[in-house]
Amino acid sequence: MPGYPALPEGLAYGGDYNPEQWPEEVWQEDVRLMRQAGVNLVTVGVFNWGLIEPAEGVYDFDRLDRIFDLLHSEGIKVDLGTPTSSPPVWFRNRHPGSRLVDREGHVLGGATRHSFCPSSPEYAAASERVAGRLAERYAGHPALAMWHVHNEYGWANAHCYCPTSAEAFRAWLRERYGDVGAVNAAWGTTFWGLTYGSFDEVEPPLLAPPGLLTGLQLDFMRFSVDAHIANYRREREAVRRFSDLPVTTNFMIPNCKPMDYWRWSAEVDVVANDHYLDAETPDAHIGLAMAADLTRSVSGGRPWMLMEHSTGAVNWQPRNLAKRRGEMRRNSLAHVARGSDSVMFFQWRASRHGAEKFHSAMVPHAGTDSEVWRDVVDLGADLGRLAPVRGSRVEADVAVVWDWESYWALELEWRPSADLGFRERVGAFYEALWREHVTVDFVHPSADLSAYRLVVVPSAYLLTEGSAKNLHRYVEAGGHLLVSFFSGIVDENDAIHGGPYPGVLREVLGLSVEEFHPLREHGTVAVSSGAGEYAGRIWSERVRLGEAAALWTFADGPDAGHPAVTRHDLGAGAAWYVATALDEASGSGPRGPYGLRGLLGEVLDHAGVRRLADVPEDVEVVRRGAHLFLFNHGDRPVTVPGVTGTGLLDGVEHRGSATVPPGGVAVVRT
Amino acid sequence: MPGYPALPEGLAYGGDYNPEQWPEEVWQEDVRLMRQAGVNLVTVGVFNWGLIEPAEGVYDFDRLDRIFDLLHSEGIKVDLGTPTSSPPVWFRNRHPGSRLVDREGHVLGGATRHSFCPSSPEYAAASERVAGRLAERYAGHPALAMWHVHNEYGWANAHCYCPTSAEAFRAWLRERYGDVGAVNAAWGTTFWGLTYGSFDEVEPPLLAPPGLLTGLQLDFMRFSVDAHIANYRREREAVRRFSDLPVTTNFMIPNCKPMDYWRWSAEVDVVANDHYLDAETPDAHIGLAMAADLTRSVSGGRPWMLMEHSTGAVNWQPRNLAKRRGEMRRNSLAHVARGSDSVMFFQWRASRHGAEKFHSAMVPHAGTDSEVWRDVVDLGADLGRLAPVRGSRVEADVAVVWDWESYWALELEWRPSADLGFRERVGAFYEALWREHVTVDFVHPSADLSAYRLVVVPSAYLLTEGSAKNLHRYVEAGGHLLVSFFSGIVDENDAIHGGPYPGVLREVLGLSVEEFHPLREHGTVAVSSGAGEYAGRIWSERVRLGEAAALWTFADGPDAGHPAVTRHDLGAGAAWYVATALDEASGSGPRGPYGLRGLLGEVLDHAGVRRLADVPEDVEVVRRGAHLFLFNHGDRPVTVPGVTGTGLLDGVEHRGSATVPPGGVAVVRT
Amino acid sequence: MPGYPALPEGLAYGGDYNPEQWPEEVWQEDVRLMRQAGVNLVTVGVFNWGLIEPAEGVYDFDRLDRIFDLLHSEGIKVDLGTPTSSPPVWFRNRHPGSRLVDREGHVLGGATRHSFCPSSPEYAAASERVAGRLAERYAGHPALAMWHVHNEYGWANAHCYCPTSAEAFRAWLRERYGDVGAVNAAWGTTFWGLTYGSFDEVEPPLLAPPGLLTGLQLDFMRFSVDAHIANYRREREAVRRFSDLPVTTNFMIPNCKPMDYWRWSAEVDVVANDHYLDAETPDAHIGLAMAADLTRSVSGGRPWMLMEHSTGAVNWQPRNLAKRRGEMRRNSLAHVARGSDSVMFFQWRASRHGAEKFHSAMVPHAGTDSEVWRDVVDLGADLGRLAPVRGSRVEADVAVVWDWESYWALELEWRPSADLGFRERVGAFYEALWREHVTVDFVHPSADLSAYRLVVVPSAYLLTEGSAKNLHRYVEAGGHLLVSFFSGIVDENDAIHGGPYPGVLREVLGLSVEEFHPLREHGTVAVSSGAGEYAGRIWSERVRLGEAAALWTFADGPDAGHPAVTRHDLGAGAAWYVATALDEASGSGPRGPYGLRGLLGEVLDHAGVRRLADVPEDVEVVRRGAHLFLFNHGDRPVTVPGVTGTGLLDGVEHRGSATVPPGGVAVVRT
Repeated sequence: MPGYPALPEGLAYGGDYNPEQWPEEVWQEDVRLMRQAGVNLVTVGVFNWGLIEPAEGVYDFDRLDRIFDLLHSEGIKVDLGTPTSSPPVWFRNRHPGSRLVDREGHVLGGATRHSFCPSSPEYAAASERVAGRLAERYAGHPALAMWHVHNEYGWANAHCYCPTSAEAFRAWLRERYGDVGAVNAAWGTTFWGLTYGSFDEVEPPLLAPPGLLTGLQLDFMRFSVDAHIANYRREREAVRRFSDLPVTTNFMIPNCKPMDYWRWSAEVDVVANDHYLDAETPDAHIGLAMAADLTRSVSGGRPWMLMEHSTGAVNWQPRNLAKRRGEMRRNSLAHVARGSDSVMFFQWRASRHGAEKFHSAMVPHAGTDSEVWRDVVDLGADLGRLAPVRGSRVEADVAVVWDWESYWALELEWRPSADLGFRERVGAFYEALWREHVTVDFVHPSADLSAYRLVVVPSAYLLTEGSAKNLHRYVEAGGHLLVSFFSGIVDENDAIHGGPYPGVLREVLGLSVEEFHPLREHGTVAVSSGAGEYAGRIWSERVRLGEAAALWTFADGPDAGHPAVTRHDLGAGAAWYVATALDEASGSGPRGPYGLRGLLGEVLDHAGVRRLADVPEDVEVVRRGAHLFLFNHGDRPVTVPGVTGTGLLDGVEHRGSATVPPGGVAVVRT
Repeated sequence: MPGYPALPEGLAYGGDYNPEQWPEEVWQEDVRLMRQAGVNLVTVGVFNWGLIEPAEGVYDFDRLDRIFDLLHSEGIKVDLGTPTSSPPVWFRNRHPGSRLVDREGHVLGGATRHSFCPSSPEYAAASERVAGRLAERYAGHPALAMWHVHNEYGWANAHCYCPTSAEAFRAWLRERYGDVGAVNAAWGTTFWGLTYGSFDEVEPPLLAPPGLLTGLQLDFMRFSVDAHIANYRREREAVRRFSDLPVTTNFMIPNCKPMDYWRWSAEVDVVANDHYLDAETPDAHIGLAMAADLTRSVSGGRPWMLMEHSTGAVNWQPRNLAKRRGEMRRNSLAHVARGSDSVMFFQWRASRHGAEKFHSAMVPHAGTDSEVWRDVVDLGADLGRLAPVRGSRVEADVAVVWDWESYWALELEWRPSADLGFRERVGAFYEALWREHVTVDFVHPSADLSAYRLVVVPSAYLLTEGSAKNLHRYVEAGGHLLVSFFSGIVDENDAIHGGPYPGVLREVLGLSVEEFHPLREHGTVAVSSGAGEYAGRIWSERVRLGEAAALWTFADGPDAGHPAVTRHDLGAGAAWYVATALDEASGSGPRGPYGLRGLLGEVLDHAGVRRLADVPEDVEVVRRGAHLFLFNHGDRPVTVPGVTGTGLLDGVEHRGSATVPPGGVAVVRT
Repeated sequence: MPGYPALPEGLAYGGDYNPEQWPEEVWQEDVRLMRQAGVNLVTVGVFNWGLIEPAEGVYDFDRLDRIFDLLHSEGIKVDLGTPTSSPPVWFRNRHPGSRLVDREGHVLGGATRHSFCPSSPEYAAASERVAGRLAERYAGHPALAMWHVHNEYGWANAHCYCPTSAEAFRAWLRERYGDVGAVNAAWGTTFWGLTYGSFDEVEPPLLAPPGLLTGLQLDFMRFSVDAHIANYRREREAVRRFSDLPVTTNFMIPNCKPMDYWRWSAEVDVVANDHYLDAETPDAHIGLAMAADLTRSVSGGRPWMLMEHSTGAVNWQPRNLAKRRGEMRRNSLAHVARGSDSVMFFQWRASRHGAEKFHSAMVPHAGTDSEVWRDVVDLGADLGRLAPVRGSRVEADVAVVWDWESYWALELEWRPSADLGFRERVGAFYEALWREHVTVDFVHPSADLSAYRLVVVPSAYLLTEGSAKNLHRYVEAGGHLLVSFFSGIVDENDAIHGGPYPGVLREVLGLSVEEFHPLREHGTVAVSSGAGEYAGRIWSERVRLGEAAALWTFADGPDAGHPAVTRHDLGAGAAWYVATALDEASGSGPRGPYGLRGLLGEVLDHAGVRRLADVPEDVEVVRRGAHLFLFNHGDRPVTVPGVTGTGLLDGVEHRGSATVPPGGVAVVRT
């Protein structure tokens, strides 16, 4: 995080610190333990609004002053939260118009956070004021390192359907379209005769009979992102009137579908992310890697901050599995390997009260005579050893297209198959690449792709003509493109591109698709690669070749004998297409049991993407700058060949190979 | 469709045509392609309200005029829709009292169709006005062939719970009952002391604690049917002031449970139906056959119109399977075989925008270089060859009782078993008869049954005393009756008939039922027929014989040793009873693996219902007038014996047998 | 039921009698049949409000007078219901503010019972008035035996969220806490900064984003109990102004989670309970036994009344299984064995109308020529023979802790595992004890425990410091305690007790728990007892021994090698702890296939709890006073050794053993 001299040196280490939940005698123990663990940064004040502004316009900073001073006296830096994700109880009582309203029209209750309307002018005024007061008071405090505006925008109030929101949405539409005729054209309102005569007639997409205009739905999602960004900007500017320290807010990549983080990334001085394992999922660390890669990509490749994760279990999953021994360490260092310059937790000390009391913490309910605490101390030492990693970058040869707007559109009602989900599709490709030890960036489809040897496009349903041209240019210039079925179908208004599917991708792929053939629930089709046979799930379709050549063929099902995988050599590059979900085991193929792995192997070879051979698939390998990170997720020691350099964690000198114990991590400066 | 000279000659062929979604240059291609395919009728204007009345009372018929003229110039007839299923956006904004309110009290949003209250006086006035204006303008147009009022009454707004609806419901009750004491008696309000003091006290059956008066619920359903019929009548009369062409509306048999189509059938000049396959179901064509037979029955045996079906996939099922090669042809001709004089599709050209853009069409997104288009053209030719079929009738020896009121009542809360569903029960009997190559009519239980050799009554839970007497007279006069368990339990107010079950059917069946014994989830009981053993699902019960004789016996379970199937010889006829769901394979019986098939075989033989022997069970055989339709749903060629005559589709002369290829259809004039 | 001379002698027998649903000629048959069956008590008038007060303030007691006189003429006593669970239709129309509002804010509809706000002042006035008028009129009637206030408090309206309820809740909080600061402290509102500035700011726990203050939720549940009790008290006092006969209301133990019956028990003169089998559950009679034991415990060990159960099926379960032959008799006598002095049914005669018409009755729809009726008559005779049992008591050596507040708290959102449920956990221990032929009492954890040899504490998540001290004193004084995981975690406000888990139980158990390890869905861990290996479900955790010794050990999973079962010898007693759900078969252990059975065997032996040996586990054995009840739930005759005395039901003299036929019951006076 160059350019932020107020931040601690090396990697930041710490977590959310909520001392207001504890008597002051505990605070002394807190800072003593923070020093023991090597904590150098804590996030303070995230849920303090009701405490620092106990009544409207009445402020009380006494406690916060003492916390700042205590932390400063111990050399611990403060990431100061503006408390605006949890307005005080008086706020909703004095301003009932600010209450959150759901799609059914229910006015939601309080006694929890995030229960406000994001378009409320009362909220805007109150949140700006409290942020400004905090900035005024603490901008000059020597402990202050950075600003943490709000908490997890969109966590529960991504969309509000109250009259104020409706009016704000109409104003947003006026701004976007100028003329209501443009709205009608964009949304295709001649369908069902739903033409708007004026902007005043537009309602949000309330609970209604099926078949709501999909363009309306997409625009309401875009509007909602803007409403939250406007709230953020207002607070950021209130802070900047007093402080030039970095300002950010904590994202929830990839678990907050409504927030388009490509749009958010420009708003923050440093990208910060909260990540929690989907603990019951086998190989949850692959999900973590994907989240970290996506966060780095949202950050434009620049180092970012892991603002929250957990030492162990969370409290909001159906079964909150604690982490196994070593898992917290691997998780933490995996985020660092993939670009984070910090390891922060929610939270420092486990709460006695409230909704999150069974969420793990750095100081657990069991206290310091516990594995968790010992691991927290050890992790602090590890992070100290990794200080040289700070600021370095991860490079990737392969990019995967990720577009929140396509995510939204793909999952609206009435698509060809309910089995087709955005996260599942992207995740399938990501997992296959992870197991091939290939590090990837995520990209918006309109981004500059020239740096990548391969770009993967998993079911990019919504794809603008501009983005499609971008992909075409990329291939012509020598790029390699792998597109999966149901890509390039609609434009930004969810209108089908003209001509046979996939409208804007026909040319680059050298084919068209005559008919979709979604499979029955749990159904499969056989796909023959020549060398073996694989299963396809979810989807089959009738591909008609143009300039492309068939590589693999459907062996049964509604498209038996027709192409399942094709390649189109175009200009200096090539574009592959795969017409089914080729990622479940069925028979054996040339590269192992997974069809998608087999296909990817061919494509990666063709694209010239080099990758480690002879390394088991549960070893995670990432290079960040001059440092090679090796994670052994298996239960046997693994020797990785071709590694020469010094181990940062253990000081071992590796000459030609590195052996990593089961569950272990090595970081080698090469 | 005799009597409707404005309609095209032969069979009508076409679909919904929505040119307003396309630029006018596309229209020219449309009519050219229509002629290529042999299209002779299109439904126009179904969703045009917002376009022809862009502001309240302001009309613009320019575009529609041009469409009429263009179609007329090419000799294509117009089925003109009144656009009242999708009121304009301005309508709901100017008349907020007209908005649909659901059972929870949510005021539903717009931006889709059907979001209006069916009892709204504002809607009544506006819909009558627009229908009248259309009639005034187009009654005399030479292209006009018929009127298509509204679209799919009850699709999403079958019931409305707004204050206006509540008031209309009270007025309806006043009309029906005259005196509130009659309401109390009908609904049995002494139960729980829920006696009404006046009509003003009645509320619709809103979301409430469990145990709502069931009589109230049934009457609210009846009221709702009447509300929609009143809307239809108002528009029909507005049209008739200017036009004497046939008026209809498109039904959704059998997929719109709230609409009692026995009541609707008298309102239309010709019955029109929309049918969509439940595509993921194996043997979905049996569901189609049932829908077509029920439609013909609703039409009183007269030819009817298939107003909508699909060339391929729909868009609103979880997984929208496209049709396999040949399936659209078989589907289309099966509707004709069962009495339709038309084959119409939703829609002509696939939409780029809106909720239904992934619904298949006659002109698909893939354009005319596609299997779908070629099949559409071929189908047009087939239908031309089948012109002689028009107007002829299907005769059936067997009738199955179908009563929407019983459907509603059976599926209210708190019945003996949640596993007992109306559609499942009727479907089980229908499927067994279909596989026996027996064509059936559906009948209301009060209908004249004298034409039938056998009447089947599957779980007719609600059965009035009058209907029961009708069945009794039918048997006495020589009819054969097969009744399944949980029939004849309640009257029209859901009050249990007096005495042991099944109150009004005890005499005709010659037995009583002492106790119901619903089975555990997935539970079965064994039933012995003497010659074999079958499984019963869902239900067992203690039958006590009166004059009836036991044929089959429960072999285990709570009624082991007691009768499972009985027969009562009464007058010149006989009445069978079956006390469990006898339709899953278990062991082997005299006629194959299905107990119900075995039982039906005995009953059909006894009733003297002749049927084809030596024809595989996946060959569908229907006779319509002088024409024998043969559908081979299997994957091997089949030779059907006893067929002599000329093949209409292929001109082949059959002398004693006809061979139908896999997936093929033969229509033989005999 | 000593002290209630107006009640019938011997055991009370009868049911709900609703003659208002029938013409008066049926009443004559009713009383004739009642005498035939030995009925001596019927509950009258439960749903009569709309009939006796047909308009506000207008009363009509004619019919009720005739019913009283008719019953009296036949010597049948009346349990007179106040009809306040089902207000008249006019009531909700005249007092719309009294309508029930759900958590989403929906105003619920009428046309059913229980649709009123429990905090409504209009309801309070109206219910008090009708109860008083009934008391005034019938207090002196010679048929009257007791008062049955309301029906099943909390059945559907346990909680109301209307503005009136909100205001009442705030008043309740003022009363409980005095100062809003005390609320903030109790609920821990510094978490998320949700500090209340005044009582006026408190809202009920409405539908809201996740994470609602849990202390608020618990207090709202307590408030709701109080609201219902206040309604009961008001009616009770209205009755007592005229009558000194016993007053009660019918509980729904254990099927009404929101009602804390420990709090209710002090309010009634005799505890009355309604119990319905969960009929689809195998061994539903174990659930019945548990309900009866819990009812007796709520009654403080005094005899209680079974106020409702069923002769056969109910109507509100998904599949309403009828009882098998003999099951009604066993059910009825099992309630008597466990302390009931009555056997009452809902209802006398099956209804023709309304929501409960498929609920079984003493006089079924099949009439008197039916198994049910013959069994009803036989049961009356049996109960006559059991008259000597009246008033005697059941003694138990073992107690199981049951605390409704812990039930509520355990099942709030965001606990460590969604698989952990209160009923399931208590039921697992109860079932194991039942199969060991051990009769248990249930106790609140703060109760006097000195009478018990063993106290079992299954997942008592919420446990106050006082209760924990009570358990500690109990062990020190020689008691035996068996505690299962996730006990003693939080205080009455759902705040975690200080220090490592299980805060207030660490000392008595001699251990702490460092980390919870909820298992994956359907996951298991192996537990080794030394003599065998068992499976643990749902949970594993890291136990750290203090003074306790490990008995059994986790053999795999996250805590492999660590203690799974421990014992702490403390003072004159011992405390066991079990750290997983040890109750599914896996391999074989020293005492059979169930781990929990094996463990309980050891603990019972250690505690000196004697129990029958050599009796199959499906034989139920209960001693009530001088009478030994034996129920054979199996399908083979069973000889129980050690039985000497006279059989009350059959007059047989048993000398050393008693043989009970399959499905049979013996009651031996010893």
